[in-house]
Amino acid sequence: MRVLGKQEIEDMAVGAALLGTGGGGDPYIGKLMALQAIEEYGPITLLSVNEVPDDAFVVSTGMLGAPSVMIEKVPNGNEAKEALETLEHFMGKKVFAIYPIEAGGLNSMLPLALAARLGLPVVDVDGMGRAFPEMQMVTFYLDGIQASPFVIADEKGNVTLLKTIDNLWAERIARAATIQKGGAVMFAVYPMTGRNLKESGIHDSLKLEEEIGRTIRLSKEDNCDPIQEILSLTGGFELFRGKVTDINRKTEAGFLRGTAKLEGLATYKGDVMELRFQNEHLLAKTQDRLLCITPDLIAVVDAETAIPITTEGLRYGSRAVVIGIPCHPKWRTAKGIETCGPRYFGYDIDYTPVETLIGKGVALK
Amino acid sequence: MRVLGKQEIEDMAVGAALLGTGGGGDPYIGKLMALQAIEEYGPITLLSVNEVPDDAFVVSTGMLGAPSVMIEKVPNGNEAKEALETLEHFMGKKVFAIYPIEAGGLNSMLPLALAARLGLPVVDVDGMGRAFPEMQMVTFYLDGIQASPFVIADEKGNVTLLKTIDNLWAERIARAATIQKGGAVMFAVYPMTGRNLKESGIHDSLKLEEEIGRTIRLSKEDNCDPIQEILSLTGGFELFRGKVTDINRKTEAGFLRGTAKLEGLATYKGDVMELRFQNEHLLAKTQDRLLCITPDLIAVVDAETAIPITTEGLRYGSRAVVIGIPCHPKWRTAKGIETCGPRYFGYDIDYTPVETLIGKGVALK
Repeated sequence: MRVLGKQEIEDMAVGAALLGTGGGGDPYIGKLMALQAIEEYGPITLLSVNEVPDDAFVVSTGMLGAPSVMIEKVPNGNEAKEALETLEHFMGKKVFAIYPIEAGGLNSMLPLALAARLGLPVVDVDGMGRAFPEMQMVTFYLDGIQASPFVIADEKGNVTLLKTIDNLWAERIARAATIQKGGAVMFAVYPMTGRNLKESGIHDSLKLEEEIGRTIRLSKEDNCDPIQEILSLTGGFELFRGKVTDINRKTEAGFLRGTAKLEGLATYKGDVMELRFQNEHLLAKTQDRLLCITPDLIAVVDAETAIPITTEGLRYGSRAVVIGIPCHPKWRTAKGIETCGPRYFGYDIDYTPVETLIGKGVALK
Repeated sequence: MRVLGKQEIEDMAVGAALLGTGGGGDPYIGKLMALQAIEEYGPITLLSVNEVPDDAFVVSTGMLGAPSVMIEKVPNGNEAKEALETLEHFMGKKVFAIYPIEAGGLNSMLPLALAARLGLPVVDVDGMGRAFPEMQMVTFYLDGIQASPFVIADEKGNVTLLKTIDNLWAERIARAATIQKGGAVMFAVYPMTGRNLKESGIHDSLKLEEEIGRTIRLSKEDNCDPIQEILSLTGGFELFRGKVTDINRKTEAGFLRGTAKLEGLATYKGDVMELRFQNEHLLAKTQDRLLCITPDLIAVVDAETAIPITTEGLRYGSRAVVIGIPCHPKWRTAKGIETCGPRYFGYDIDYTPVETLIGKGVALK
């Protein structure tokens, strides 16, 4: 157990943006909410997953929708509370602790804000080890844990509780309701026992986020190359360096979808990198070679500062480095690849680990 | 209190088709389900609304979606039970009786089937005095009674519970979820007290349905004109007689929408009637004159037998009589007209009562 203050939150937000792989919503809003909640209600207790009793009732809270909507539709703080309380009422038990569904973006920060407000601890665990765009893309799903009962609440006060036969239906119905509710809602989902969370979750995600953030922050005074530091911390690879020349983004079916192009600089001169995203970056390729593909992580960072850049933060002319990071081994199983590999997102490409692709890539049809 | 056997159900189904004004789903499926439930579980108890204690907990059950989908997606009987039980669990109380949301179509029959199965009484009351396509189009809405908590359940086993800030949001979110769930679901909605039901509902709707059905059935042996009998029973008017020459139907946004044209016969020769519908008939006009418009009832019946014809049962060449029936006075208030009058459905026409229009009509722009 340890207590999180403002500096920890600041560092975590930077790490969350990196593991958010461009999506998951800009952690900036979540950070502000968490900082404000600490200001009002005091510091937040972070529990290691091993400190959670086996029979404890734990729930994940966060925001569902398109990141570009979230920027304009900042939550008022009541939605997550309302979602959590509706779930508690329906299940007839009180929540022991909350945890982030993903280790990336807004959703790794929002549980901190709610926890401070409700005086609940947060568990240092998540269901992705990164960010993904859909609710069934969690290790819990791979382990047969149900997303439902699943509650979503909007800022107007509408609350919807779903009991679904499987997690794909949970995603499908929740997404349709979210679009009706204006494109972004707060959720309480994957209610489970401490034991399930321990066995199925990815441990110490918030700790990793904080380390990434601290490393980037300290690299300047330590006079280190922040990008090299991140690569060694995450086991990642530099895929490309270049200048953003083209961005296409649209919000459709409740997602932010699009592509970005970068023209190579330095040793990459003459090459063009194309990134494809659905909230998160899913595919990185040059003209003819695949360099990294989901479920491995693709992050874009500022070439100078290593500060991560989200898909909605990409600007024409930005100098950026594209990084590939191996995903958690759970995602490299057959069910993991089926759940969030290339074909799920409509790419007719086999998954190949980033460490195999690096340096040579595979030729694309 | 009285007990309903098979003949009563048969008669009610015919009356329900007439008050269904072409929509509400073909009561045939509901009738079969009710008859089968009586066969298995015994007769159904029908209570007058005055026999329901003021503090009793009552709920409406039925089906939400496009009638054309319902024909192919017959409920398995578990959905309504699941919806009702989820609502009971959430509200922490047991249902005393169920009641139909509308006096028309499938939804006036389905509560009978569920009641037989669960051994619950049905209350002789409804919220429309006819059928309407949307969940907020009930007298309860005019009286400020909330639709939610509101549960919908599909045949796969997915259950969604909505707590909404108003009944328009209930309709909007439920409709989106219904489309995801295949276009038709069973619901448990408008939970309220016996007292609210008494004060806000339209009384004796099932009795009227039964009288209409019996009148049509007996007119043959009594050698009466069944259409004249219906008109005197409902206070309705004959608007047109003709032959169906043109039908356009499509299922969109969860509704069956379309138009039908009839060429005049006998005294109507040379005239063409056009009907417009969204599940239910909403507007009846000749080339240049409006003859009846929502919320007044427009029903199409077989010219020989007076058996009602639904919008999905309209066939090229059918000989039909179009009937206009004054709606319940609650629908003729300002809020009633705002809720389900012409402009709500996108017709730039003022509401004029059918008895004012009859014989002369109003000129259309």
